[in-house]
Order: sequence, then C-alpha cells, then structure tokens
Amino acid sequence: MLLLPSADETLDSFSDGAFRILQKKKGYRFSVDAILLSQFIRLRKGERAIDLGTGCGILPILLARAKGAHSLVGVEIQRDLACLARRNVELNGLGDRITIYHEDFKKLRDLFPRDSFHLVCSNPPYRKYLTGRVNPSLEKAIARHEIKATLSDLIQAAAYLLPVKGRCYLIYPASRTVDLLTSLRRHHLEPKRLRFVHPGKEEAAKFVLVESVKDSGADLNVEKPIFLVGSSLPPELSENIL
Amino acid sequence: MLLLPSADETLDSFSDGAFRILQKKKGYRFSVDAILLSQFIRLRKGERAIDLGTGCGILPILLARAKGAHSLVGVEIQRDLACLARRNVELNGLGDRITIYHEDFKKLRDLFPRDSFHLVCSNPPYRKYLTGRVNPSLEKAIARHEIKATLSDLIQAAAYLLPVKGRCYLIYPASRTVDLLTSLRRHHLEPKRLRFVHPGKEEAAKFVLVESVKDSGADLNVEKPIFLVGSSLPPELSENIL
Repeated sequence: MLLLPSADETLDSFSDGAFRILQKKKGYRFSVDAILLSQFIRLRKGERAIDLGTGCGILPILLARAKGAHSLVGVEIQRDLACLARRNVELNGLGDRITIYHEDFKKLRDLFPRDSFHLVCSNPPYRKYLTGRVNPSLEKAIARHEIKATLSDLIQAAAYLLPVKGRCYLIYPASRTVDLLTSLRRHHLEPKRLRFVHPGKEEAAKFVLVESVKDSGADLNVEKPIFLVGSSLPPELSENIL
Repeated sequence: MLLLPSADETLDSFSDGAFRILQKKKGYRFSVDAILLSQFIRLRKGERAIDLGTGCGILPILLARAKGAHSLVGVEIQRDLACLARRNVELNGLGDRITIYHEDFKKLRDLFPRDSFHLVCSNPPYRKYLTGRVNPSLEKAIARHEIKATLSDLIQAAAYLLPVKGRCYLIYPASRTVDLLTSLRRHHLEPKRLRFVHPGKEEAAKFVLVESVKDSGADLNVEKPIFLVGSSLPPELSENIL
C-alpha cells in the first residue's frame, strides 16, 4: 500500500503531528465540520461505531485518536476515496481498529445485520449546495432534491444499523434543520442534543450538530452554541465555511 | 371600567413608565418570554396581527408601543384574564388600536374568515411543565399531552387565519423544538427564522423563537443566540426562567 502522496495528493499533518491525512489536491477535502462532529460525539472505548460516507477516513481516525475507540467502520461509495481512507488508516497505524468498506450505504444490509452498531455517525454530502458554478436556482433545486434523497437514505440506514437506545450523530447545514429533525423523528431516531455552529458571535449558524437516540422520548437539549471565531480549531479547516 | 388594581392585583410600570400592566398577584403573570417574542416579531404599521392566548394583553400592548401597530387583536379563553387584558388596553390608552376577545381560539372560525390577518403570534401555555408541585413523571406526562394538544390546536388556528406568505411567531420551550418544527411544517407554516434564548453563555437554551411563513419553501435561518445574562431585560422578568 502506497503511503506517500501521489502527484495529485497532499499529505497534511494535524494536532502537532498527532495524525496525518492524505487528501486529493482537487476534489473532496475534509473540513472543520469533521472536527466539530468528532468533538460532539460521545463514544466509549468498547462501542462499535460506523461512519457513513467516510471520505478520506477522517472521522474514524479522529475517533480512534481522541476517544480511544477500537472498533470502527468507515463506508465510502467512491472507490478512490475508499482507497485513500485505507491508506490513511495505515498511515496512522490504525489498521487493527478501523475497517474501511467500499460500498453504497444503501446496501449495508448485505454486510451487517440489524442492530450491529452502538453508534452511527455521518457528515453527509451537501457540497453541491455550497458551490456556485451553475445557475443558482437550478442548482438549489437539484441540490435540495439530492440532499433530501441522501438524507433520508442515510437516516434509514442508521435506523437499520442501530438497536434501541443506539445513537446517531450528524452534522448538517443549519438551513436544513427542519428537514433533518423531521426526517430523524420519522425514522424513530429522536433528536436529544442539538448544537449550532456560528462562524462569529454576530452571525447566523452555518451548521447544526445533532445526537439522536433510537426509540427515545421527546426531550431535546439545545446546548450552548459554538462560535468558530476565537476557537482553537486549525484555521486552514475553517475556510470552506466562511 | 376599573383601571385601578384590586386587592389581588398589582400595577407594574415598565420601560420607565412607558407602559403599565395590571396583573394578578397570584396566578398568571407575564414573563420575559413575552418581551422576547415582541422583540423578535417583524410587524409593519398597516398589518393586522392577532395574539392567541393573550393573557393580560401584554403582547398586543408591546407591539402597539414598540412597533406602532394599530390593528391588533388579542384572544383569551379565560374570562378573568380577558377582562384584565381589556383594562390594560384602556389603561395604556390603546382602545382604538387593540381589541380583546374572550374566546377559545379553537372557535375562531365563527369570528374571523380565513386569511384575516397578516400575522399571528402566541406565547402558548406550558406553565405546568415548568412548575414542580406534583409527581414529576406524572406531571411531565400530563404536561406533554397538554402541550401537544394545545400546540397543534394553536398552529391549526394560525394556519386558518393566515393567507399565503402570512407570518406566524411563537416562543416555546427549547426542549420541545422538534415538536414545534414538525407541527409547523405539517400545517404548511414553514419555519424560516429560529432564535434560541440561553440564560447564560455556558447554558443550554430555555426558549426557542420561531418565525414561520405560510406555504413558503424550506430554508431556515438560525440567527445568533440571545443570552439573557448581560442583556437589558428587566431583571424582575427573568426570574421565572432560571
């Protein structure tokens, strides 16, 4: 397995070298949202966790490093990214704790029985919504359609993989909070913790973080907000959201 | 009409005497949530607005004073409170701008045709949920049931009274945000602005403020949060929420 960056890749070091990540120069690059989600997640060492749409594997790697988790799965539909994720896992010496599958998360029933994980997490794709290359109204309409399909598929997959009281952690654009909450409730993943992420103290929220618990009662805790300005997040990761 | 306080009432002056409010010594007394809601509401002078469950009339009075509105209706199901609201309207010299109805808001179809108002607002009852006199789990169950019934009735009434693009403004316990948002969307009052109210900077939200627009598209703005600590709200109004 090639652990050095190829010509179209970068090798970036984070947290004073605590972990290193290979990424494409162009195309998908992880951003502050992955860091925020990893910090929001509550995970005990013995719990089995799965990341749906793991990209370059950033979230399982962060969870392994920061929370000491040792039973992590990442699923990625794009072959290139799944390969990259496997290389990143090896690069960080986490091959015995993280397994990457190249698979569509809509087909997870072939891989895992019901109730296989304590925890599902995902930073679902919504990049198209944030880029601005095509006609804005057309793009918005397409993106909205795609977001809804993806979001509903994702939440359905999470509901399948989780037992009663299993937890689901997502980060999503704050502008889609109503879609997110109604979809989670529809699939019996009741939202229990919510946290909004604001770029600055005077600015509207860009992201929402949510913890849902399967078949739980309705009682939501809206935690204190996160303001990215003045936070200790690496500045190079914030650029995508401002 | 008796404009002086009776033995079981107080007469309180607010905003350096800009308005005065008669209230029961015991029983319902308005709180910071009414002030927060009035500040959140966007209302142009010529617009017709209705407050569902107006209590002592505080919200129409605040809207008349702060926003210059001159076509306001308050509806109150409890006779005592409706009388009190009428006296408060007179006391503040707003009889030509505010009309109080003693009516159940579930029966508003007899009073007003569809699409009668530009704006509906309400600070719906949830006091039982916040008091702690009876068995907590029983009380919680009852309160939850009542909240849902009341909330759904309320939102249905708002949807009836508003035309397409009409606005609905509510304040509600943050812990019930999912109930609130799902119920609003179900009745085609799409949430467009959300604002959470935190007692302090390190504390979870107590209230959520929401602006919904009838038959609008899904695109939510989660505004910067409100922190009550350090705000300019009268301290005597904050005590109920801490």
